[in-house]
Amino acid sequence: MTVKPFLPECAGISETGSLTIGGVCALRLAEEFGTPLYVMDENEIRKNAQRFVKSINEHYGGRGLVSFASKAFMCKEMCRLAKSEGMGLDVVSAGELYTAIESGFPMRLVTFHGNNKTPEELTYAVSSRVGSIVVDNTFELHMLEQIAKSAGVTARIKLRIKPGVEAHTHELIMTGGIDSKFGFAIETGEALAAAAEALGMDHIELTGVHCHIGSQIFDIEPFEVTARIMLKFMNEVKTILGCELSELNLGGGFGIRYLPEDSPVPLEKYMESVARVIKETCGELNLNLPSIGIEPGRAVTGAAGITLYRVGAVKDIPGVRTYVTVDGGLTDNPRPALYGAKYAMTAANKMNQAQNKIYTVSGRCCETDQLGAQVTLQEINVGDILAVFSTGAYNYSMASNYNRLPKPAVVFVKDGEARVVVNRETLEDMARNDV
Amino acid sequence: MTVKPFLPECAGISETGSLTIGGVCALRLAEEFGTPLYVMDENEIRKNAQRFVKSINEHYGGRGLVSFASKAFMCKEMCRLAKSEGMGLDVVSAGELYTAIESGFPMRLVTFHGNNKTPEELTYAVSSRVGSIVVDNTFELHMLEQIAKSAGVTARIKLRIKPGVEAHTHELIMTGGIDSKFGFAIETGEALAAAAEALGMDHIELTGVHCHIGSQIFDIEPFEVTARIMLKFMNEVKTILGCELSELNLGGGFGIRYLPEDSPVPLEKYMESVARVIKETCGELNLNLPSIGIEPGRAVTGAAGITLYRVGAVKDIPGVRTYVTVDGGLTDNPRPALYGAKYAMTAANKMNQAQNKIYTVSGRCCETDQLGAQVTLQEINVGDILAVFSTGAYNYSMASNYNRLPKPAVVFVKDGEARVVVNRETLEDMARNDV
Repeated sequence: MTVKPFLPECAGISETGSLTIGGVCALRLAEEFGTPLYVMDENEIRKNAQRFVKSINEHYGGRGLVSFASKAFMCKEMCRLAKSEGMGLDVVSAGELYTAIESGFPMRLVTFHGNNKTPEELTYAVSSRVGSIVVDNTFELHMLEQIAKSAGVTARIKLRIKPGVEAHTHELIMTGGIDSKFGFAIETGEALAAAAEALGMDHIELTGVHCHIGSQIFDIEPFEVTARIMLKFMNEVKTILGCELSELNLGGGFGIRYLPEDSPVPLEKYMESVARVIKETCGELNLNLPSIGIEPGRAVTGAAGITLYRVGAVKDIPGVRTYVTVDGGLTDNPRPALYGAKYAMTAANKMNQAQNKIYTVSGRCCETDQLGAQVTLQEINVGDILAVFSTGAYNYSMASNYNRLPKPAVVFVKDGEARVVVNRETLEDMARNDV
Repeated sequence: MTVKPFLPECAGISETGSLTIGGVCALRLAEEFGTPLYVMDENEIRKNAQRFVKSINEHYGGRGLVSFASKAFMCKEMCRLAKSEGMGLDVVSAGELYTAIESGFPMRLVTFHGNNKTPEELTYAVSSRVGSIVVDNTFELHMLEQIAKSAGVTARIKLRIKPGVEAHTHELIMTGGIDSKFGFAIETGEALAAAAEALGMDHIELTGVHCHIGSQIFDIEPFEVTARIMLKFMNEVKTILGCELSELNLGGGFGIRYLPEDSPVPLEKYMESVARVIKETCGELNLNLPSIGIEPGRAVTGAAGITLYRVGAVKDIPGVRTYVTVDGGLTDNPRPALYGAKYAMTAANKMNQAQNKIYTVSGRCCETDQLGAQVTLQEINVGDILAVFSTGAYNYSMASNYNRLPKPAVVFVKDGEARVVVNRETLEDMARNDV
């Protein structure tokens, strides 16, 4: 079987048959910056960000905020990029907040998330004047009231709500959502009780509600269903508690293309459909249109990233399989091991050759780590540069130092130029905290 | 169902009903060093190391070396401990080698492993004069010959052999081992061919063979079968190639007790059985007794480690389940997510209370990370200190900074005293390489 190389939008092929990313030769990148290497196309990231921002402008009159979910890919330069594109920023820990602060990100556009924020983190978030804290549970609500009181400020919050919708790729499980560690359930009444409690607090300002129904979702319908459920809950808060909330945050979860056969919904289509549902439902319920928030992470950076590896060994086991071993693996991309995630890949130095040989691509960790089982590639030799696509989200951010392997550098490419945005870890870095 | 707390050997209960580790109160440790916190009982680590060393002395006349597999738990202090106990050290990367060097570990007792060592790493290993390099494949063999030649030295090597044995907890799959990314297969003839090639090289000294059949093995039989197969191969090398190899390294894989129902074989029993098999087989084959190597990692540090977490929320979902959320999770212990690993745990501040409530213990990461599904604990409240047992291997070494969560500190406890051996990462550490 010959498989024509599947190329993401950020990639191309040079005259000499090499892979290019953002107009830069992948082989040059591997040579100059070493491998493994995370390469990300800045134009692709900006384009995705702009599409989300524009879709709110076009379909919802600009009454909303697109926040980048930094857990997908966090570093100072990504914060600067998000700022320059007019995005907000989601953070989920002191570490992410620290990074945002150090990058000069405007704190009023920061939302602090998480199912178990520590007292220290809430204090840090309050003293940093983040724009919004999404409160997950009543323990946190009480703690935050005390912290805000001590600081002499009012904390603006949203409540994390379980809408009872859980979206899997092409499934819709209407009740599954209740079995989640995140947030307040609507059907048990705890969400309304939390809203009542928050509204009665002196140092808490409840401005809206938040939900997140899953990840890598390829359907629009779950988002539409969720928007209706959330608006109905906002209507309950209005009619029962007498407070009309002004913000509805629908979270993220927008799927991207990992494999040629994946067909995610165009980003604009999501906002078009959801905006229509929100307008309809607000009309039915006689609610003012809320400001909406969406939180894409993977959909902004995922497809913009390519990881480059060098092949260190090819091991043919007659009658069994042929292993191709690269100089990274589980440490820089744990998603195959964690989720059974599959990736498209190619030999960056052989783009004019047919992909018609089957290999199992293994990593260099001291376990059976695989980047791809039985994938179809060009004929592979030691020294080839293997490019794995769509690694711009949940790769660098999830990387470990297992086997004391350093985290790879991250390079942004744009219009034929490359620049390091995260330096490669050094051996010293990894032993820095050893006594 | 009431479950009496299962206590690992390093743990106890104080007069006030608190968990103690190495004689130190877990609550004091959590207070003084913060949570999450890796706590390791130094005496337990030393005792395990000594049992392995002693077992070679008693059953094999001391003709061997116990090397600590540092991928299980690596930091400078662990290297110092291994040195003081007369152990060798396995490393699998430049980062592990660097740590060993910085700790002052004797290089002649270091073995360099890995299925994809880079040219830079081999050069580093050669120039550092490590005692042995375990060569995985012919590309590496040729590269190493060149590197040793350039350095004007002879590199002492073993060959990584696939014995065709793969051990699962209570299974023995005789042919499975061939489908591995590691090493040379015996049955295809590639192992013998590699030995012949190595013996003909000017800057390579082939001293022995190495194998590793798996992890967390609870049976002795697979090790006995493996020893026989490896000796038969050594006999082939002797009779066909005319060289009697002097070293047989049987790797690691010794199981430990994670759950009350686990019953690993006593460490001594392993060496007793394998020594007998080696002596018998060498007698049959008329081979001199080789020096043997074993490489325990988990079996030295695993059961000596306990992770302490603070409970940040308890969320009862009527008719579904109750979540207990702690301040760590996937980032400091990815084994439940990666392998479905199960752990025993207890509330360290409630050791006099019955464990008769069922909870799902979730982490704080922005995913559905769980440390244990439906585990039986004492009645849990916010602020409780949860202790997860047997986390002394493949926890700190596999930790990530997902969500920009800092890696916890590691504290050694001994005879009532505690000292930090790895400092907690700081927020600055995590953004240090951001440009």
